[in-house]
This record gives sequence, C-alpha cells and structure tokens, in this order.
Amino acid sequence: MTIDEQLAILKKGTVDLIREDDLRKKLERAAKTGKPLRVKLGLDPTAPDIHIGHTVVIRKLKAFQELGHTVIFLIGDFTGMIGDPSGKNVTRPPLSREEINANAETYKAQMFKLLDPEKTELRFNGEWMDKFGAADFIKLCAKTTVKQILERDDFTKRMAEEKPISLHELLYPLVQGYDSVALEADVELGGTDQKFNLLMGRNLQREYSQEPQVIITTPLLEGLDGVNKMSKSLNNYIGINEPPNDMFGKVMSISDDLMWRYYELLTDLSISEISNLRSEVEGGKNPRDLKVSLARSIIKDFHGSEAAALAAEEFERRFVKKEVPDEIEERTVEGPVHRLADLLVQTGLAASKGEARRLIDQGGVKVNGEKASAANAEVALSGEGVLLQVGKLKFLRVRN
Amino acid sequence: MTIDEQLAILKKGTVDLIREDDLRKKLERAAKTGKPLRVKLGLDPTAPDIHIGHTVVIRKLKAFQELGHTVIFLIGDFTGMIGDPSGKNVTRPPLSREEINANAETYKAQMFKLLDPEKTELRFNGEWMDKFGAADFIKLCAKTTVKQILERDDFTKRMAEEKPISLHELLYPLVQGYDSVALEADVELGGTDQKFNLLMGRNLQREYSQEPQVIITTPLLEGLDGVNKMSKSLNNYIGINEPPNDMFGKVMSISDDLMWRYYELLTDLSISEISNLRSEVEGGKNPRDLKVSLARSIIKDFHGSEAAALAAEEFERRFVKKEVPDEIEERTVEGPVHRLADLLVQTGLAASKGEARRLIDQGGVKVNGEKASAANAEVALSGEGVLLQVGKLKFLRVRN
Repeated sequence: MTIDEQLAILKKGTVDLIREDDLRKKLERAAKTGKPLRVKLGLDPTAPDIHIGHTVVIRKLKAFQELGHTVIFLIGDFTGMIGDPSGKNVTRPPLSREEINANAETYKAQMFKLLDPEKTELRFNGEWMDKFGAADFIKLCAKTTVKQILERDDFTKRMAEEKPISLHELLYPLVQGYDSVALEADVELGGTDQKFNLLMGRNLQREYSQEPQVIITTPLLEGLDGVNKMSKSLNNYIGINEPPNDMFGKVMSISDDLMWRYYELLTDLSISEISNLRSEVEGGKNPRDLKVSLARSIIKDFHGSEAAALAAEEFERRFVKKEVPDEIEERTVEGPVHRLADLLVQTGLAASKGEARRLIDQGGVKVNGEKASAANAEVALSGEGVLLQVGKLKFLRVRN
Repeated sequence: MTIDEQLAILKKGTVDLIREDDLRKKLERAAKTGKPLRVKLGLDPTAPDIHIGHTVVIRKLKAFQELGHTVIFLIGDFTGMIGDPSGKNVTRPPLSREEINANAETYKAQMFKLLDPEKTELRFNGEWMDKFGAADFIKLCAKTTVKQILERDDFTKRMAEEKPISLHELLYPLVQGYDSVALEADVELGGTDQKFNLLMGRNLQREYSQEPQVIITTPLLEGLDGVNKMSKSLNNYIGINEPPNDMFGKVMSISDDLMWRYYELLTDLSISEISNLRSEVEGGKNPRDLKVSLARSIIKDFHGSEAAALAAEEFERRFVKKEVPDEIEERTVEGPVHRLADLLVQTGLAASKGEARRLIDQGGVKVNGEKASAANAEVALSGEGVLLQVGKLKFLRVRN
C-alpha cells in the first residue's frame, strides 16, 4: 500500500491531524526502517463500559494496527488512584488497585473485540508516575506556562465564569502529556475534547528532546437521536455488549442522514465506497437496505458474522415477513383449559371480552400460528402451552 | 512576664500579625502547658550572606527564643537543589548538596551571633519533600485553587503584563506552605514580601487538620541612604561581618530620622524606651550621642561589647578628639633623609613646595605627633619611619 493510500485510511473521519506532513514522514520512515510506529490511546479507568461512540477512536487505532503499527492502550491508573483529591468532583472518586485492574480487564474484553491482542501493548502510567518524585514534578511543570495551560477551553470558560479550578487540575494534562514522553509515542489518538491534552504531549516531547507525536482527533459520535452526543445518560447509545437483536433494532431506527455519519465513523468503508452508496440511493435504492448492511457490519464487529446474519434474519422475520420472533414472553395462567376470548383478556392481550371477540372476528388473532375464528374455542395449556399472537407484533406464550 | 508584656515585645516593629488573638491564645497555652511554641523562619539557600537588613526578622525570632520558645531555621534545600528548572531565572540556578551545606554553615555562623544555637532547630525541607511523591504533590495542589494562588501580587502583576509564569512557580509557595505542616509550626516569620507564602502555610495547615500558624511580617529595612531598601547591589548596607570600625562609621552617617527606625528594628529597646529618648532629644540632647549608642548596640550584637567599646573609642579619638587613628596608610620613599617640605610634596600631602611651606607656617603639619615649624627641617626615615599628619584627618607613615 502506498503512503498516500495509508494516509487516506488514517485521515478518514478525523477532525484534527497535526500534522499531516509529520505523519507522512513517520509513515515513510516506518516503511523504510521496518520499525512500526507507536500509537497511543489513553483511557480513563473510571468508566470502563464502552458504547459504540467510543469505538470511533478505537477503529482508528485498529486502522493503524492493520497497517502494521504498534498500538498502545494506556490506562491512567496513576491519576485514577488519586481521583479528584479536592473532593469537589463526585465523578472522579479515587479507585483502588483492584478496581483499576477489574476495569482494565473490562476494557480489554471490549477492546479486543476490535483489536488484535497479540499486537497491542497494554500499559499503566503508574509504571513511571509512581516513581516520579516531587522534584520531577516541579521540573515537568517548568516546561509549560500558566497561560498556556489556562488556554484549555474548559479552563478558560471556568475562569471567565469565576468558577474555581483546583490547582491539581492543571497538573493532569501534564501527566497525560508526559505519558507520551515515557512511551515515546509517535502518534496519539483521542476525541476532539482531548485535543489540548494531546498537544501537551507534543510540546512535552519537544521539551524532552523527542520528536513530537502526531495527534489525531476523532469526532464525538452523535447518538441515535442524531442530535446529541452519544451517551449513557441520554439513553441514545448502543452498548458494545448489547445483544445483536437490540443493536440491529437501534441501528434500523436512525435517520438516513445519521446513517451516512455512522458509515463513515463505524465501518471500514472508504470515503469513495460510501460515496458510491450515496449515488445508489440517489438513483432509487432504498436506504433501508443500507441501514441493514450497516447494522450487520456493526454487529459483526462485536458479535461476529454469524450473529450479525442471525440478527438480520430475526429482524426480517419479525418486522418484515412478520414471522414469530425467537424470543417470546411467557405467562403462566391457572387451570388447564380456557376459552380463547377469556385467555386474551386474562393475559392482557385484549382489554375486554368485547375487544377480544372483535380481534378474533377481524382475523387478528393466531393460536400456535393458526388464525383463530371462534371466540369461545377451547384452548388447552398443558405441555408446551400455546403461542398466542395478536396483530403483527404482540406474541405471548401461555402455560399453566 | 505577662502575656500582654510578651505581646508588646513580639509586636514591636512588625507589619502584619495574623492574628493577634490567635497569638495570644498560643502564648497562653504555652505558658499553661509549658510546651514552647514552634517558630519558623524559612531561608533561601542561594544567598547566605546576611546584612543587618536581614537581621530585623532574625531579631524577632530572637525575641521568641528569649521568651522560651523553639526557634526553627528552615533551609529550603529541596527547592534550592531544583532551582528554576525553566532556566529563565539566572538568580535561581540549581545548587549541589555541597553548596547547600556550605551555605547552611555560613547562615549558622551568622545567625548564631544573635541566637542561642542550643535552643535553635536547624532543618532542611528535603527531609520530607524528597520523600514526597507525585501523588502527594497532586493532593497538595488540590488544596488550593488557581485563582487563590494567582492572587499573589507578583503573579497578578505578571499576568496583567502578559509576562510568562512557568507552571512550576505556582508550586513553590505550596511547598513553603507545606513546610509549616511538616514542622507543625505555631508561628512563621518573614519579610512583608513573604506575606502570601506565609498565609499559604496557614491555609494548608487548616487543610491538613492542624491549628493554623500565626504569621508575623517585619518591614524591609531602609538602607543607609534612608530611601531605598537595604541591599548589596545598592551599596547602602551594613554587612554583619564588617569590621566594627566600618559599622560604627556607617551608623554614624545615617540621618536622625533613620536612626529612630534603626532603634526600633535593630535594638531591644521597647517602644516606650525609644519614646523617652525622643523626648530627650526634643529637650536638647544631641542626637549624635544616641547614634553612638545605636552603633555600639549594633556592633555588640555581632562583635561583642568589647569590640563595640573599642570601635566607639577609635571613632572618638579619630573624629572627635582628633588623635591618631589605629590604622594608618604607609608609604615608602627612597633615600634615608629628606627636607620636610620635599617629603610633603613627594607623598602628595601637599600639592607644591609653596603649599607645604604655608601648611607648616600655619602650624598644620605634625611629625611624629609634634608640630613642625621649619619647612627645611631634616626628617630621617630609618627604622619605624616617621608619622606625618596634615590637618586633622590626613595621616601617613613614611619609611624608606
């Protein structure tokens, strides 16, 4: 693959690339010397549950890995074990070594769905920061000015609003930056909200006489609503441990516009391939079919191709061909035999006997897949029970 | 001594006392429990040469010591060995352990002229700071906000002038403050320029659940010119290692106004005793006599009473009684015998033979203490040589 082709893959869907020339030189040198680049992604050990919004940057890491480079997950255990010592930030309580390790395992389990564990370095910044003395810290702090660090967006904002900033908060970006020095990172990845911290690494490497790392930021993925950033608290997310069927349904629910965004950020398709798909839709192809492909691609990443195919079939059966879904709610009812209309009322599938009769008369009720025609037909619940279906979507298995 | 009497001594000549009530309580408790107060003075290990301007605060320390309290000299070896790692401040190069120790010895030699070595603790903040880890540092920094620390006058000024402040500079006041925590200081002394740093100790002790120290600042002493702060660079200082005669002469040269200031800050006289002296001067006493007493008092502190008495006598003899000074310049002239007028010209005591004759005729020339009357008298230079005196102040010993 030419350097230009590699660059095209690595640039896809990114926001900042500082700087492309430097990245080109590093890629050229790696190709020439056979020495892979060291590509760093730092992780906050306090929140190990990942949703697909987080995978945007992980996929970028994967792209580097597939080009033969060394990928480094850095877990910030040093800062994680300190937390927010001012006690003002409840989201950053200090973690114990056991919690950090457990969270690291959770990360690994999730990350290695996308990445090759053999080619991935898992590191903890406690390796060097625990040995870092107060004098080292002072020397580190001397590498930057108060003004430079207060230029970080959230600091500037808080200063302007006269909201307090604890002095230790100024130190964390320096630790993150110093991690790049300790790891001799060639590239660091992060979300756009990390840009300042990534640049700090670049500056500090220069101060410690290293070649500055290239920084690449990826966008914050919009959630299923297509408006807000994907987040658990807004409940507009797809968790990477969610069952395939839930993933499928969620992807199918997004807007056509958002589908293109997800194609760019959550698949390996190149910009030109995505562009071709767009042309097909403009030429009359149903975007729904592309949403199915997108859903399958995403599920494949986390559950494998087979699970993706099954989820697609299940969705098809349930919502397109209107067949019976794989998983059906079960209900227990007392007594071995019931009149059909009574059973529909007892199980809540109909609000009243009158409604039950009307549904049956309209042909909207099936018993074990067979359309029912008599409201007073007797239904026996022994053994496997019976499968009741009302309309296209309501299914219930009833036993006694 | 009552607490009020003690307070009067401790308050004399101070600028800030935060807070008097707290100091009163601490003194009362010390009196009650018999446990002396711990009184801290921090010293910068980069500049161990002391002039009497520095002794203002040391004298305050001595006052505490004389009241039975424990006096602590803290040498900032931790920060001294780091210096200014940004390399922007040439006055703070890092010092080696040997340099720090040598400077500490210099301090001791000077300080113990005023203080009792037996009752003085000499400490180095490396004792605790060398063991301080990066995590400890972050926790320390969490105890204060960016805004609080940028309120220090010089930081505010530099921010306003857009002059860079290295991030590590914000850490040094915290280290100084933490020293008070480590030493469990009850009182910290310093010049008015140290007020912010002293208050930081007070805040940090509170954060570390200690009773906050009382802080006392002393003024920056005016130099001999009575206008500028005493400093070596302005050459308006009295070094504490200067010979007694030089000290005496320098004190005698100050203005009457400055004399009162020096009485307040450089002697043990109480405010009311000084007030009585003022009344005497208003009643006609010559302030010159009080300047002599002041000079003797200062010299006594650094060279002892005998040296002070000798310096006073010497000054008296030379400038008041016009006798021969102890130290006289010597000059060698070729040839064993000369005419007196020739000798005066040769040695520069007279500009010409005419002037030499006139001086002799007016009775202004003495040879070996005897008034000379003949310009052509022969003067023999063998052995000890001769002592020539012209007017009241020019003395010269001439040999061949």
